Amino acid sequence: MSDIRRTVVFTRRPNGAPTADDFAVLEQALPEPARGEVLVAARYVSIDPYVRTMIDPANPYGAPMELGIPIPGDMAGEVIVSNNAGFVVGDWVAGRLGWQSHALSAAEGLRRLDLDLADPPIHLALLGSSGLTAWFGMMEIGRPEPDENVLVSGAAGAVGQVASQLAKAAGAYVLGIAGGAGKCAHLTGGLGLASAVDHRSGTLGEDLDRLCPEGYDVYFDNVGGSITDAVMKRLRRHARVVVCGESSQYDLIGNEFNPRILGPLMDSRATMTGLLVSDFTAQYDMARAELARLHRRGDLKVHVDIVDGIENAPQAFIGMLKGENTGKRLVRVR
Amino acid sequence: MSDIRRTVVFTRRPNGAPTADDFAVLEQALPEPARGEVLVAARYVSIDPYVRTMIDPANPYGAPMELGIPIPGDMAGEVIVSNNAGFVVGDWVAGRLGWQSHALSAAEGLRRLDLDLADPPIHLALLGSSGLTAWFGMMEIGRPEPDENVLVSGAAGAVGQVASQLAKAAGAYVLGIAGGAGKCAHLTGGLGLASAVDHRSGTLGEDLDRLCPEGYDVYFDNVGGSITDAVMKRLRRHARVVVCGESSQYDLIGNEFNPRILGPLMDSRATMTGLLVSDFTAQYDMARAELARLHRRGDLKVHVDIVDGIENAPQAFIGMLKGENTGKRLVRVR
Repeated sequence: MSDIRRTVVFTRRPNGAPTADDFAVLEQALPEPARGEVLVAARYVSIDPYVRTMIDPANPYGAPMELGIPIPGDMAGEVIVSNNAGFVVGDWVAGRLGWQSHALSAAEGLRRLDLDLADPPIHLALLGSSGLTAWFGMMEIGRPEPDENVLVSGAAGAVGQVASQLAKAAGAYVLGIAGGAGKCAHLTGGLGLASAVDHRSGTLGEDLDRLCPEGYDVYFDNVGGSITDAVMKRLRRHARVVVCGESSQYDLIGNEFNPRILGPLMDSRATMTGLLVSDFTAQYDMARAELARLHRRGDLKVHVDIVDGIENAPQAFIGMLKGENTGKRLVRVR
Repeated sequence: MSDIRRTVVFTRRPNGAPTADDFAVLEQALPEPARGEVLVAARYVSIDPYVRTMIDPANPYGAPMELGIPIPGDMAGEVIVSNNAGFVVGDWVAGRLGWQSHALSAAEGLRRLDLDLADPPIHLALLGSSGLTAWFGMMEIGRPEPDENVLVSGAAGAVGQVASQLAKAAGAYVLGIAGGAGKCAHLTGGLGLASAVDHRSGTLGEDLDRLCPEGYDVYFDNVGGSITDAVMKRLRRHARVVVCGESSQYDLIGNEFNPRILGPLMDSRATMTGLLVSDFTAQYDMARAELARLHRRGDLKVHVDIVDGIENAPQAFIGMLKGENTGKRLVRVR
């Protein structure tokens, strides 16, 4: 076991797309857990787009994240020292312990992982924030009915892969939007969606019309930007739009402007609702049980995109913002 | 009684703000009702902003309205000839009979007016499309709770005056936005709202902050444009936005662009819903009874803005789009 703790931090705020120079990897001796604490050795760390928003000076969710602190993200790992009666060495746990090789935890936010239920990467990818976000967005806001037409942007991503399969399991006709032929093949092949639309084709609007001429009842939006502009004109009466993310905007400097969307909303009488998963914490256990059940039954495939080494977390993040991942991006820590 | 029928029509599609030259007043001999029909002499005709959208080549609600036909609008009037067993001469009726002095009706869409319930202008202003739009928007989408903060744009207009008072009757703290000091005085004086915000002040954002620093739970939007941009940043958690109209946009040539609103929606986890009153026809009778009850009880004041003469309907419409009316604009026909 390594006796060095590696922690990935921002050293400055990215100006547009992040670069390697915005990050540093700090090395320290392993800390000693205080009374009531455990020391967790990371095995997998979740790399999430929301980090780009949090480090931005204009973070809409509150004060921007500080520089020099562990970058937030879920970690799955093993307890290697325990001063807490609730945990023993060897326990697998997950918590929001950040981009680091080892973490101290007072154990309040820690959940024990049941490896009979799912492997650790699946715990992070499906039973962590990505899968929960997909669940509450699709089931509480999107609410697809059998035979409704459901469209998911970023469908090959961490949230999108779960959201699109949840709609399929509900009996909907599901189309996914992704960037590039490879991801599109994955959507119809691996995930079994009815159709895939490549937003890089240059014919997004025509493709959306051709593949589903009657329009869309549910749009689960992870991307925003010009993709959303195109979809808003193709909503069916009383459609539901789940506003989950706008990854197309995170690296922009300043605001992008778009055609106003009040007109399309009035035309379709659609509803758009902003989603933040932490509004639903009281229902996490129920959602995890349902997600795990669908996964075991084979109705919910989870693609995991692994990058090795905590020191490579910055590159994993930079690439994810450019859309290079298929499925949930995780860093594996040895 | 005049034996001439005057009908106001468009002779061409307005390019931007309509001008008098876009209209004509046709004169014809009074028509003879066929079997089953009645002839109605107009007393009041409703002048509504949706006409601007319908005549536009880009009408989002369907094919643009034809030129040369009666411009649509509700009429309240008296039956002067009846070939229908359900109506006798002297009956007061209302229906969507257009901008004209007299109309034939096969009586299907005609409703008899109970003058004990309300005077004819109140039937049009409160129990017609404006009041019904306000009712369903506020009660089905806005759903204000006691002590919530409710903001209404175009609050001195036909829909806004009803929407804002419905929220007040529900126990909410209600602020109205209007253009100019006179309308603002009317909002707090005549209608009894808690506060009024003049969107022409040049300090809209600061005023919205000052008058309600904690932000808004419900926004009933009749105006769109830069007013909506300012409000979106001031929504409280889980706010509801009723997208009823965007009068600021109707006279624009081409699309206005705005900052994207997905970010504010995610930040607030608000819901925006497009409204069209005709989705609620099955509940019109219930809503009319409730609106009339509130009106009789003195909890719902209805301001009517009268222009005399059907030949002045074009000017009444042009002025309304510029915001010169306070309350519901009607043309009185002699």
